[in-house]
Amino acid sequence: MNIYFACSITGGREFEAAYQEIVAALTADGHEIPTSHLAQSDAMENERELSPQDVYERDTNWIQNCDVLIAEVSAPSHGVGYEIGFALNIGKPVLCLHQRDRRVSKMITGNSDPALNVRAYADIKGAISQVQLFLTTCKCL
Amino acid sequence: MNIYFACSITGGREFEAAYQEIVAALTADGHEIPTSHLAQSDAMENERELSPQDVYERDTNWIQNCDVLIAEVSAPSHGVGYEIGFALNIGKPVLCLHQRDRRVSKMITGNSDPALNVRAYADIKGAISQVQLFLTTCKCL
Repeated sequence: MNIYFACSITGGREFEAAYQEIVAALTADGHEIPTSHLAQSDAMENERELSPQDVYERDTNWIQNCDVLIAEVSAPSHGVGYEIGFALNIGKPVLCLHQRDRRVSKMITGNSDPALNVRAYADIKGAISQVQLFLTTCKCL
Repeated sequence: MNIYFACSITGGREFEAAYQEIVAALTADGHEIPTSHLAQSDAMENERELSPQDVYERDTNWIQNCDVLIAEVSAPSHGVGYEIGFALNIGKPVLCLHQRDRRVSKMITGNSDPALNVRAYADIKGAISQVQLFLTTCKCL
């Protein structure tokens, strides 16, 4: 499957290790993740070289071409919030994952769009199980 | 004018004083701001009493009925990122304001939608001037 993995870049990298482990597990399962480099530690440095317009065009094209969007939402991010709405708006299934003790915006948890799934996880193993369950049950386009 | 003022709630309240001063200036100019209570210090406490679904329905209805959306984007927020996309998607003019030293997501600064305006400010007086300029020049629906 082609999976758009969304995570905070400018908003903060506190949960970078979780991003990397989720992306590694998805890649090991044979999925294609155009955004996999955004989970890496040099993401911000590399993205700095691209103009904002290039990043916006690239990322929205990737969302248009993905099967599903998976967002790690433990750290707040304007970009990820925007991407979740963009994906839902064009009918993509979306999974938002967050660490159990983190509060998530009610604009995410209160959205009753049937294509949106929000799940908490206690540890990275739990996060990966949630992702795998989502991928086997979501109605992909 | 009916103005949807968007600011971080769950994402962090570091810039709450700026939210309050912008809302106070808009109110003094005679504008109607259905979200004005979200700039106040008890916003999070009061919002806790509402279900996520009620908050989502209320806020998206307010966006549908506003003339423009003004977002303070100095602190990252999934909700505000989502709201910016929601407003642009239904053709509302949007102003994103941020303190000059804060980095803003390229999913916001790189969006070439002509209805979207992103402006930095050095102090609160500058922020209010930017808001007033935007309101006199935007093509309101």
